[in-house]
Amino acid sequence: MEVTKKLNGASYVFWGGREGYQSILNTDLKTELDNFASFLKMAVAHKKQIGADFQLLIEPKPKEPTKHQYDYDAQTVMGFLLKYDLDKEFNLNIEPNHTTLAGHSYEHDLAITAAFGKLGSIDCNTGDESLGWDTDEKKATFVMKLVIKMGGLGQGGLNFDCKVRRESTDLEDLFIAHVGAMDVFAKGLRNAAVSINGKLSKMLTERYESWESKEGKEVRSGKSSFEQLEKFIKASPQIPVLSGKQELFDRVFNDEIHDALRN
Amino acid sequence: MEVTKKLNGASYVFWGGREGYQSILNTDLKTELDNFASFLKMAVAHKKQIGADFQLLIEPKPKEPTKHQYDYDAQTVMGFLLKYDLDKEFNLNIEPNHTTLAGHSYEHDLAITAAFGKLGSIDCNTGDESLGWDTDEKKATFVMKLVIKMGGLGQGGLNFDCKVRRESTDLEDLFIAHVGAMDVFAKGLRNAAVSINGKLSKMLTERYESWESKEGKEVRSGKSSFEQLEKFIKASPQIPVLSGKQELFDRVFNDEIHDALRN
Amino acid sequence: MEVTKKLNGASYVFWGGREGYQSILNTDLKTELDNFASFLKMAVAHKKQIGADFQLLIEPKPKEPTKHQYDYDAQTVMGFLLKYDLDKEFNLNIEPNHTTLAGHSYEHDLAITAAFGKLGSIDCNTGDESLGWDTDEKKATFVMKLVIKMGGLGQGGLNFDCKVRRESTDLEDLFIAHVGAMDVFAKGLRNAAVSINGKLSKMLTERYESWESKEGKEVRSGKSSFEQLEKFIKASPQIPVLSGKQELFDRVFNDEIHDALRN
Amino acid sequence: MEVTKKLNGASYVFWGGREGYQSILNTDLKTELDNFASFLKMAVAHKKQIGADFQLLIEPKPKEPTKHQYDYDAQTVMGFLLKYDLDKEFNLNIEPNHTTLAGHSYEHDLAITAAFGKLGSIDCNTGDESLGWDTDEKKATFVMKLVIKMGGLGQGGLNFDCKVRRESTDLEDLFIAHVGAMDVFAKGLRNAAVSINGKLSKMLTERYESWESKEGKEVRSGKSSFEQLEKFIKASPQIPVLSGKQELFDRVFNDEIHDALRN
Repeated sequence: MEVTKKLNGASYVFWGGREGYQSILNTDLKTELDNFASFLKMAVAHKKQIGADFQLLIEPKPKEPTKHQYDYDAQTVMGFLLKYDLDKEFNLNIEPNHTTLAGHSYEHDLAITAAFGKLGSIDCNTGDESLGWDTDEKKATFVMKLVIKMGGLGQGGLNFDCKVRRESTDLEDLFIAHVGAMDVFAKGLRNAAVSINGKLSKMLTERYESWESKEGKEVRSGKSSFEQLEKFIKASPQIPVLSGKQELFDRVFNDEIHDALRN
Repeated sequence: MEVTKKLNGASYVFWGGREGYQSILNTDLKTELDNFASFLKMAVAHKKQIGADFQLLIEPKPKEPTKHQYDYDAQTVMGFLLKYDLDKEFNLNIEPNHTTLAGHSYEHDLAITAAFGKLGSIDCNTGDESLGWDTDEKKATFVMKLVIKMGGLGQGGLNFDCKVRRESTDLEDLFIAHVGAMDVFAKGLRNAAVSINGKLSKMLTERYESWESKEGKEVRSGKSSFEQLEKFIKASPQIPVLSGKQELFDRVFNDEIHDALRN
Repeated sequence: MEVTKKLNGASYVFWGGREGYQSILNTDLKTELDNFASFLKMAVAHKKQIGADFQLLIEPKPKEPTKHQYDYDAQTVMGFLLKYDLDKEFNLNIEPNHTTLAGHSYEHDLAITAAFGKLGSIDCNTGDESLGWDTDEKKATFVMKLVIKMGGLGQGGLNFDCKVRRESTDLEDLFIAHVGAMDVFAKGLRNAAVSINGKLSKMLTERYESWESKEGKEVRSGKSSFEQLEKFIKASPQIPVLSGKQELFDRVFNDEIHDALRN
Repeated sequence: MEVTKKLNGASYVFWGGREGYQSILNTDLKTELDNFASFLKMAVAHKKQIGADFQLLIEPKPKEPTKHQYDYDAQTVMGFLLKYDLDKEFNLNIEPNHTTLAGHSYEHDLAITAAFGKLGSIDCNTGDESLGWDTDEKKATFVMKLVIKMGGLGQGGLNFDCKVRRESTDLEDLFIAHVGAMDVFAKGLRNAAVSINGKLSKMLTERYESWESKEGKEVRSGKSSFEQLEKFIKASPQIPVLSGKQELFDRVFNDEIHDALRN
C-alpha cells in the first residue's frame, strides 16, 4: 500500500488466489471468513491512516491452488462484502480466466458486477474459454457498452497483463499482444458507441417494457400480491406469451458490429 | 403452497432450476434480480396470508437448462437474500449434483450453509462426482457431523429422490436405492456420534486455538491493526509456522470411521 | 437405414449419445466394446445388403445421460475404429456441444478429424462455450478453411438442427436462427477463400519449414536417431529458439477477416 | 534413459504434460503428431541401443499448461499408439488428477487401460475430484481388483509422489501421507482378495451371461446379422428386459468391504 501510494496508484487489488482451503476436515469455514473480514477491515483502516485515496479491489478466483477459495466469483464476493459490512469500501476487479474457472462467462461476471455498481476495474488477458481467440471484438464491444453505461470505470481501467505466455521466447510477442489487445478494445469502444443507442439497445428496452405498466410498477415497488396478479391475469386473456428473440438479438448485434467495421 | 399446507408439509422448496438467462444480449440482469426478489416477497406474503408455517427453501442450481441461473450456488443465494432483505424468510436446500455442477464439493456447500445458519434441508441423491459411489460413508459421516453440530435440521430432513436412474427397469431398484442410502446415512450418523467428540474434533479446535489468545481476540473483535500486528510479530520471533496437518486429519478421520464400523 | 435409402440420404449418423455406462461396478468394458464393434460390423453388412451407398458416420459424445460414453470424442472414436478394423467404413460427424463437453474446442475436434481424413460431416448448432455467440465468424472462417483444404465435405454437409431452444415460443425464431447461421457460414466461406492463400497460411507453412531440411526429413522418414540429432545440434550452435508467434497469428487472422468484411 | 538404466529402473515414463498446442492458428496437428511418433520411435531405438530393458510408459494428461495436449487421456494415447504402430513398445501410466482433468474418473481410465492390456503402472496421488478424500478404500479396492485380475502390474507399481502439497511446512506430513496411502492400498488389496471371488464378481459374470448363448456367441464371432437377430427376437417374445441392478451392485460392494474390514 505504501508503494502504491508513492506511485500515485489509483487502485490496489487484493488477489483472491490464495485465501481458501484444501481439506474441509481441517478447516473451520466460519472462523476463516470472520478472520478474513477482520483482515480486510484492518486494511481499510491502514489505507486511511497512511492517507491513501486509491480504491480497494478484490479479484475473485474460485480455486487453484486451493480446492476452494473464498473469493470464488463476483456474486460470492459481493455477498461476502454485504455480510461483513465491507460493501462501501471495496469494488471488484474481474479477470477472464477466473470467471470461466468458476463456470461463468467473462461477460456474465462483468455484467453482474456492473449491475450492482461494483465494477472497479477490468483485466483483459485471455480466458481459457477463448484461448487463441482472445481478441474477440464482440466480447470487447459488449464489455465497452457496459463501461459506457456505467459512466466509465472511475479510478479503474483496462489492465493488460505485463507478460505473455510462458512458452513465449520473443520479446516482440509482448508488444504484438499489447498492440493487438488495445486495438481490439479500441474497436470495441467504437462499436459500442454506435451500438449503445442502436437497435439492440432499443430492443432490450422494449423487452422489459411491460414492467413499466401499472401492474409491473406495483410488482417492483412491493405493492402487488399473488392474489392481485391472479385476478389480473384471469381478466387479461389476451396477453401473449412472448419469445425472448434470442436469435434476433444475436443477428442484430452482429449486424451492428459489421456496420461499425465498414464505416 | 395450498397443497403443502393441506398435507402439513414442513418445507416448501423453490427449485432454482429455471430462473436464469440464455443470452446476455437480451437480458437486463438487474431488472431480473429485482423482479425475482419481488416475486419471493410476494410468496412470503402469500404464505402468511394462507396461515402456513412451513419453512421456505431455495435450492441452488448453477445452470442447465439455461446458461446461467440466478440461484447459482449456496453463497450466491445467501448473498442475494442479504441484498434484498429476504435473509430472515428463507433457508437453503442443498442438492449434490447442483453443487458439483457449480464447481464445489457437496461437503463445501453443506458446510458453508451450515456455517451461516442457513441449512434448512438436505437432498441425498447421487452427485455426478461420485456416480456409482454415492453410498460413501465418509461423506455421510461428515454430513451428519454438520447436522449434529447445528442441533438437527429443524423442519428439514434428508430427502431421497422418489425415482432412480432413467435406465432402471426394475421397481426393485427403487427399494434397493432407498434402503442402501438410508443405511449409509444411518451408519454415517453412528460414526458422527463417535467422531463428534473424538480426536478429529479436538485437533480442529487446537488448530484454531491461537485465535483465543489476546492478539487473536483483538483481531476478531476489530480492535487490532496492521501496525499492532507488525509490532507483535517482530517481538515474537519464536512463533512457529505450523502445517495444517491435512494428511493427519485424513488419517484420523479414516481411523475413527474404521473403529466405529468395527464396534 | 431403409428410410435413409428411400430418401436418397447421403449420410447415416450413429449418434453416440447412449452407448456407455453409469456404474463401472456392473460393467465389463472390454465385452461392451467388443460387442459394440460387432454391432457396427453388422450395420456395415446390412447397409451393403440393402444396396445403400450413404456414408456411415459416428457422432462423438462424451457423457450425459450416462457417466461415460464409448464415443467419447473424435480421437477416442478414431482409435476405436482402428482397433476394431472399422476404419475404412466410418467417418465422423462433429457436433460443437459434444466437443466442449469433452473438454475440447469445436475447432480442435474438427481439425484433428480433418487431419486424419475422417471428417464426414459437421453439425453447426451452438456449443455451450459460446452460447449466445454462436454466430462467430472467426470460428466459421476457421471451419471453412478446413473444409476447403480437405477438398470439400464429400457426402456430408453443414447440418443445422431443425429446432431452436426449448424456451422459444415463436416459430419465427427458427427462421432467424437458420438464416443467421447460414449467413455466418457463408461469410466464413468468403473469408476462408481469401485467407486460404493469405499471409496466415504462409506463416503456418514457414513455421514448419525446418522439417523440410535434410535433418527434418530424416526424422520424418524414420532415418534419424537421438545420437545423430545430438551430434547435429552440438555442431549447430547458431540455431535459434523461435517463438510460435501466437499473438501475431491472432492479429493476422483478425486482420484478414476485417479486410474480407470490408471488401 | 542412461540414468534409469544405471539405477536398474523398471519403468521409464514419458510425461504428457507438455506436448500440445496453445493456438490452433499456428499449429499443424498432423505434422506435430507425425513428428511426435518419430520422436518416440527414436526413443525406442535408443533404448535398444543402450541395452536397457525397462518398460516405456506414456502418462496421459489432457491440458495445462497448453490448451490441448496430445496425450489427452488413456483412449487417445492407445489410439495414437495403434495409428503409428507403436502399440507393442509402450504401456500407459495412469495418474488420477489427469483422468479427472480429462472428464473421466480415475477408475475409468484404469479399467479401460487394463481392459486392453496396456496398464503398465499406476500413480496414486490425490485426484482433484477427491481432494481430502484420497484415502478412499472403495477406490483402492476397485483398483486392486483390476491389478489382481490382470495378474499383477508386471514391471510397474503403485507410485506415490515424492512430495506433498505445496503449502505443507512439516516434513512429518510427507511420512503421514505415504504411510496413510500405503495403508489404504494394503487394505484395498485385502478387500480385493475377498471380493475377487465374491458375490459382486459372480453378479458381474451373470450380467453378461447371455453373450455365452448360441446367439450371443454368433454376434461376438461376427457370424450374426441384423436379419438373423430380428428373426430371433421376434421368435422369442419371452425375453425379459433386465435392469443393470446398479443399486444392488453398489450395496453388495459396500457390504463386501464392510465384511472385509470387520474380519
